[in-house]
Amino acid sequence: MPVVKSIFEPKAVALVGSSRIREKVGMTSPHMFANVAYNMTKFFRGETYVVDLEGEKGVKTIDKVPHTPELAVVVLPPRNAIEQVEKGAERGIEAFVLLTGGFKNVQRKQLSDLTREYGIRILGPNTIMGVVNTANGLNTTFERDVMPPRGSISVVSQSGGVGACLLDWACHYGVGVSKFAFMGDKIDVDDIDLLRYFEKDPNTKVICFYVEGVEKGREFIEVAKEVVKTKPILALKGGVTREAAKRALSHTASVAGSDVVFDAAFKKAGIIRVEDVEQLLDAAVALSKQPPLKGDNIAIVSNVGGPAILAADAVVRDGLKLATLSEKTRLRIEKQFPGVEAVNPVDLIADARADRYSFVLDAVLSDSNVDGVMVINMLKSTFFEPEDALAVVETAAKHGDKPVVDVPAGGEDFALVQKVLRNSSMPVYNLPEKAAKALRVLRLYGRVKEKGVEV
Amino acid sequence: MPVVKSIFEPKAVALVGSSRIREKVGMTSPHMFANVAYNMTKFFRGETYVVDLEGEKGVKTIDKVPHTPELAVVVLPPRNAIEQVEKGAERGIEAFVLLTGGFKNVQRKQLSDLTREYGIRILGPNTIMGVVNTANGLNTTFERDVMPPRGSISVVSQSGGVGACLLDWACHYGVGVSKFAFMGDKIDVDDIDLLRYFEKDPNTKVICFYVEGVEKGREFIEVAKEVVKTKPILALKGGVTREAAKRALSHTASVAGSDVVFDAAFKKAGIIRVEDVEQLLDAAVALSKQPPLKGDNIAIVSNVGGPAILAADAVVRDGLKLATLSEKTRLRIEKQFPGVEAVNPVDLIADARADRYSFVLDAVLSDSNVDGVMVINMLKSTFFEPEDALAVVETAAKHGDKPVVDVPAGGEDFALVQKVLRNSSMPVYNLPEKAAKALRVLRLYGRVKEKGVEV
Repeated sequence: MPVVKSIFEPKAVALVGSSRIREKVGMTSPHMFANVAYNMTKFFRGETYVVDLEGEKGVKTIDKVPHTPELAVVVLPPRNAIEQVEKGAERGIEAFVLLTGGFKNVQRKQLSDLTREYGIRILGPNTIMGVVNTANGLNTTFERDVMPPRGSISVVSQSGGVGACLLDWACHYGVGVSKFAFMGDKIDVDDIDLLRYFEKDPNTKVICFYVEGVEKGREFIEVAKEVVKTKPILALKGGVTREAAKRALSHTASVAGSDVVFDAAFKKAGIIRVEDVEQLLDAAVALSKQPPLKGDNIAIVSNVGGPAILAADAVVRDGLKLATLSEKTRLRIEKQFPGVEAVNPVDLIADARADRYSFVLDAVLSDSNVDGVMVINMLKSTFFEPEDALAVVETAAKHGDKPVVDVPAGGEDFALVQKVLRNSSMPVYNLPEKAAKALRVLRLYGRVKEKGVEV
Repeated sequence: MPVVKSIFEPKAVALVGSSRIREKVGMTSPHMFANVAYNMTKFFRGETYVVDLEGEKGVKTIDKVPHTPELAVVVLPPRNAIEQVEKGAERGIEAFVLLTGGFKNVQRKQLSDLTREYGIRILGPNTIMGVVNTANGLNTTFERDVMPPRGSISVVSQSGGVGACLLDWACHYGVGVSKFAFMGDKIDVDDIDLLRYFEKDPNTKVICFYVEGVEKGREFIEVAKEVVKTKPILALKGGVTREAAKRALSHTASVAGSDVVFDAAFKKAGIIRVEDVEQLLDAAVALSKQPPLKGDNIAIVSNVGGPAILAADAVVRDGLKLATLSEKTRLRIEKQFPGVEAVNPVDLIADARADRYSFVLDAVLSDSNVDGVMVINMLKSTFFEPEDALAVVETAAKHGDKPVVDVPAGGEDFALVQKVLRNSSMPVYNLPEKAAKALRVLRLYGRVKEKGVEV
């Protein structure tokens, strides 16, 4: 078994910290230690051995844990951490996640030496949030009760802050997550290790990266080229502009490199770029729940006029096309609903309920001129009820090779419909412009699948 | 008093409908009538006379209301509506809002003729949601309890659907609204009338438009040129692409026209364009709460590294610059907090609380190299507490001529901080990219104020 697997799938974990040590620079604190212990105890379905260097009783050093766990999670300042890693390695522990930071170069080198000496693998140090695996409940974050719902999206973040933001977003909006990994100082386990692990992981369908720089760029691209054949890779890149890149250098010691070079390399590998955290998770949800788009032609089916026009603008702006419905489809719809003018975007009129949505969506998806559909179902100013949205899910499922996305445009409208569709196979967006961006990514991945690379 | 004012500021309103008539096309229904009556009774702080054509008792025709109101709101099919408008005009009512639709051309002409004959003004027909005025509680919408909080943003929507989406968004996210107007078929009161009214309205600070087409384009631009000297105008334009424009033609009979022409005209008038409903309200909130940006130089003050780098990317991408902090500012900050490296973006480190934010934000805002600030205060992965954000509001208020926006990046983080800052003068965004777009609009309006036009 490759050791990286132990980082996500240990049967037992040693959590090593101190109920006394508090330091400013690296963030080690009794509070953080206690919170990680809380999350591990609450969520992890394996064994957790808590090792407290200053505990009044119990195990006070890693080599004294009753059984040898596959993974140790360490919340300690550099000197203590290195000592515990070495003792743990001696004891036979094969993987380590180092949450806290403040390591000097010489200390990072000591850790690297240990990986070589003992064949252990280290994630971090300075990962801050460490790892999350929703399948076994592993949760090394120090934010109490921050646990996303189970799903098939895996996320790798170079930055603790961006990772925390992604995690918070996923929890708040119910984005189905498989695994989270925060890389931190990346002295050993890196993007390539994680990519290779996720490629084989049966619980991962979509892989998301936040990167500032990639050290072994060429190798990363080569591995990615293989991975995208079976699983899409999305990337949000920080340090795109010259000004921000300078800052990234001091933030994670990443040479962000020219954005043009990055962009070309990503394209070559079939990695799909997005522009912010919301777009990253919006696209990931679409890819995890719907098939890729096999063509450019989008139909819009809506119970309101104006938002459908904004949707049409957005679809075209994002490089897709408005499908021209066939005569047969048009007649089929207009015969059934004489008030509806069946040109794309199709306006179902404000009194449309589940039955009209089912019929029209089915007709539109049966049309060979249509490759995918954006459904808009607002509640405000219409007769639509949140539960009617289930008809969209059912009808879309009958046409499993064409993607459908759903837009209950607005604030409360989105929240109400999303509550109904949260655990369904339907991606839900609060504005048509966001749904169009998700469709664009489904099309880009469709092209990756067709051609291998070069989206 | 110009009659348009009566549409928003009546002392008394006649609500005219039927508890029996139900029609498919124009949306007239007893349910809709009852809901409007519910909202009017609940929120309107003037007198509401309910006129039910089929009521068992009570007033059954508009000319029999006990006193003459300034405004009548009509929820009736075309034939009945026209009859009631004429009787109301005879009785001396000067303004009418016609909610329901389904009017034929000849019926629209009948309404136009009545406006000329009696000097009355009509908003609609087919406005669907009609008008909202948070100052006097006027609310003619048929969605129960949809009432945004009081504020200084006024919104005009050509489309009922986009208007409903904007209203829903404003209610859900607590966007402070002054007035909403849905124009519908626009047979009389139009964009220009509303623009002129909002120019003089002391409760309106920012004017938002959703437009598909403008009939009297030249006049609109001329009026807008004057208005923007004192109040910013934001526009979301539907039917931008050729494909969507065709659809807009059948939706609101608008000749959307070439987008290039529109764009040039908007620029000439100093109208600021945005790309979706969220950007429209995000920008409006910034303009209603903060001063315009007088220069391009933005400082970023953050308790997390990665999101600050994404913020820097976004600021530069949106045409602004990263400010170079003066040596004096740098020394002032680094002397107080030796762990903080005071280059822009300034990383306050994860343990920053209110006091550090206050000190650094004050130092940065005092720097003449800085024109505005984006503050990032995440909760997850940091020690920041929601109430600490009040320090940002207080410090920003001391430097009233430079705008500050706040970003508790994420899902729950945003919700928690927004709850604290909702009624403050601080605009709050859930991602740095959205805050950068709002800053861009503050800069564009700053340029409009400097030069008059041509942003």
